Formats: sequence, structure tokens, C-alpha cells
Amino acid sequence: MSEIICTVDVVLLTLHDHRLHVALLKRDHAPFAGVPALPGGYIHADEDADTRDAAMRTLREKTGIASPYLEQLATFAGPGRDPRGWSISVAYYALVPSTLIDQTSHPEVVMTAIDQLKGLPFDHRQIVDAALQRVRDKSSYSSLPVHLCGNTFTLPQLQNVYETILGEPINKVSFRRKIEELDILEAVEGQMETGKAHRPAQLYRLKKQFRQHLALTDRGLNSTA
Amino acid sequence: MSEIICTVDVVLLTLHDHRLHVALLKRDHAPFAGVPALPGGYIHADEDADTRDAAMRTLREKTGIASPYLEQLATFAGPGRDPRGWSISVAYYALVPSTLIDQTSHPEVVMTAIDQLKGLPFDHRQIVDAALQRVRDKSSYSSLPVHLCGNTFTLPQLQNVYETILGEPINKVSFRRKIEELDILEAVEGQMETGKAHRPAQLYRLKKQFRQHLALTDRGLNSTA
Repeated sequence: MSEIICTVDVVLLTLHDHRLHVALLKRDHAPFAGVPALPGGYIHADEDADTRDAAMRTLREKTGIASPYLEQLATFAGPGRDPRGWSISVAYYALVPSTLIDQTSHPEVVMTAIDQLKGLPFDHRQIVDAALQRVRDKSSYSSLPVHLCGNTFTLPQLQNVYETILGEPINKVSFRRKIEELDILEAVEGQMETGKAHRPAQLYRLKKQFRQHLALTDRGLNSTA
Repeated sequence: MSEIICTVDVVLLTLHDHRLHVALLKRDHAPFAGVPALPGGYIHADEDADTRDAAMRTLREKTGIASPYLEQLATFAGPGRDPRGWSISVAYYALVPSTLIDQTSHPEVVMTAIDQLKGLPFDHRQIVDAALQRVRDKSSYSSLPVHLCGNTFTLPQLQNVYETILGEPINKVSFRRKIEELDILEAVEGQMETGKAHRPAQLYRLKKQFRQHLALTDRGLNSTA
């Protein structure tokens, strides 16, 4: 048995200006020192309970973000992806509202629009692409995009988030019916969005039990069925 | 960086007597010597191109099966799953027709009905359960179950395979329409199933380009939409 490098990498996604962004950090040592890359690092066998725990620790240490919606994406491995040797990266993806990214305390985190990505080291481009594919696939039939919203949001805001991820307009009536069927939201009493010209809209938040678990629909949220 | 044990495990599934079976092999050394377990083994950094390659090699060496439909399931890891230390297992699942399992050349392979599984070592029960969940989820909207059929099959046989995996009857008309939409099958000319009392049925086989890639439907194969 040869020695294998065991790491985790996290694709941290957020929405900013109606575009998906991914968190990158300039690497502070070789290989690829100075090059922006996904937050990642070695698995610490002496402290990590599993790879999810390693991903959470990495994210917390490198971006200051704790307990986001985090899911295992896939494992990327081989002799060519890291110049240091045969390596395994167990990749995770996380979705957070942009308000959660505090760049005052972590100025080294650079949120980069996914259509502006270039020159990522290792196989990080492939990892990002796999995460985007997963998020798009899953968004059409689950509560996943809700994690890109802030603590409270209106239904039009939520629909806009779904439309941004799916890249297509969604029928408002069937969208609202399916969100209601998912039963994932609770109205925030006494709060309304203000300061807009149109009628104030009810604010909602995600029910607590769905903060770490997805709700799934049988039929796509973007279908009119 | 502590040393981490890097392995692959494969959940090899087949249908026998209208029930899903999983391939187990008695372990020939500690830990759990003599206990039936999933086919698995160390990643060989000196010969494996990636973890998929390691899974293919393991399956070929231990069961004699080459080039089945094989997909990465998930990675299982932690300090407690293997008594030898902190370990990673990149788990794959494969679907094969029962005719492919030649127990003459590999008598140590025991195909076990999934409702008869007990006492699996490590976290292999959890890995099997994750594979079953994945296969059921994916079967409702993809060509996945076709890989459980032999080289040629009739549409009623294929429908029966889907019904067995999904655990529910499927409407024949909408099933056939969706299979047609998937465009994954080609008729085998001049061949009919014989020796049955009823009218002989056309035989089909999977088109070559779908042997390693799934075709997906928008709407479930078990829905009438």
C-alpha cells in the first residue's frame, strides 16, 4: 500500500447580483502558491470524525462559515490531480446566503462569479462543474435553493432564486402550489418587506427541520404539472 | 498528517427470482476473517488510474466480472468503521444480469437476497442501504434498471424489472411510451422469445452508447403523466 494524500475540498456557492458565485482562496503554499483555489485541506485523522466533519472544519477555519447546508458531492482521485502524488479529494458543496460571507474577518475569501472562473488549480474546475450540475439537477425537485436565501425572504424572491439556478422562468401559480406542498416554510409574523413601491409581501423563513435536510417533490418545481 | 487507510468497496447488484441480490465474499483475512462482506480492497496507487479503476480491478479480481455498469455511490470514512484505523472507502455500485455471475469460476461469490442480509462487517450494511436507495431513486427516471436485464429481453420483461425495483405496478402504456422516448433500445432482428404459450414478443437490446451512460426522463417512468 503506497501512501495516498487524503483531502477534502468544498464548493461554497452563493447568489450575488442574480449570479451564482463560488468561494475561492489564494493558496498560501506550494503547489500553486498564490493561485485562487477551492477551500480545502488534509483530512486530520486525529480530530475529524469523518470527511463531512473535515469539510466543516476546513470551511470554518478558512472562511469563518459554520453549519451551512453541506452535502457530499463526489470523490475525485488519481495520480495526476495533485503534483505531490496519488491523491483523493472528497468534495462537498455548500449553499449559503451572500450575507453570511463576512469578508471583513476573512478578506482572503474571494467570491467569484461562475462565468468568470479561470485557471483553477488541480481538478478544481471539474469539481466546480460537478457541483453546478448537481445543484441544477437537484433544484428542480427539492428545497435546495432555499439555502441561498437569507433568513427571511418573500415568495417572489424565492421564485427568483429558483429561476436563476434553473436558468428559466417558472410559472408562479404552480411554483407556489409546489412550495406549499413541500411544507418547508413558515410565515414570519408581523414582518413585511417594506420600502418598495408595490404592495408589501409576506416574509417567510425555512422551517428548522429543513435546515440540514432537503424536502423533495415528485414533480419538478419548474413544471406546470 | 496521519496515515489513512484508502479502500474501495463495490455493491454488485443483480436480480434473481424477482428479488434484488447483492454479491458477498467471505473475507480471507483479519479483520472479520470468514465473514461475508462486499468485494473491496486497498487502492493500489502504483496501478490504479483513479478510484473507479480500483473498483473495476477489485471486481474483476474478486468476482471475474469486467465492465459492468458501475457508478460512484458515496465515500464512507472515519476512525470507527475499520478496526485497523481511520479509513476511507470510496463505494461504487454495479448492476449486472444474473447470467453474468459465473459461480463455477468464482465459487466464493455468494449472491444474497437483500432481505436476507445480516451481520455484515464494517459499515457495509450502511453502504448497501445507500446503494439500494440510490438505485430505487434513479430507476424511476432513468435507464438504470436495463442493466439488470440480460443481453436481450422483451418489453414485458423490462417492465417487470422496473416494477421489482420500484416495488409497485407500472401502467403499461405510459411505460412503453417513456421507454420509447428514452430511445435506448434497438430491436434484435429475427429474434423472438419462444417456448411460451402466449404470442411471441419482440426482443430488444440496449443501444451501445447507453451501456456506460444513463438516459434520463423528465417525468417518472412509473407516473402516468
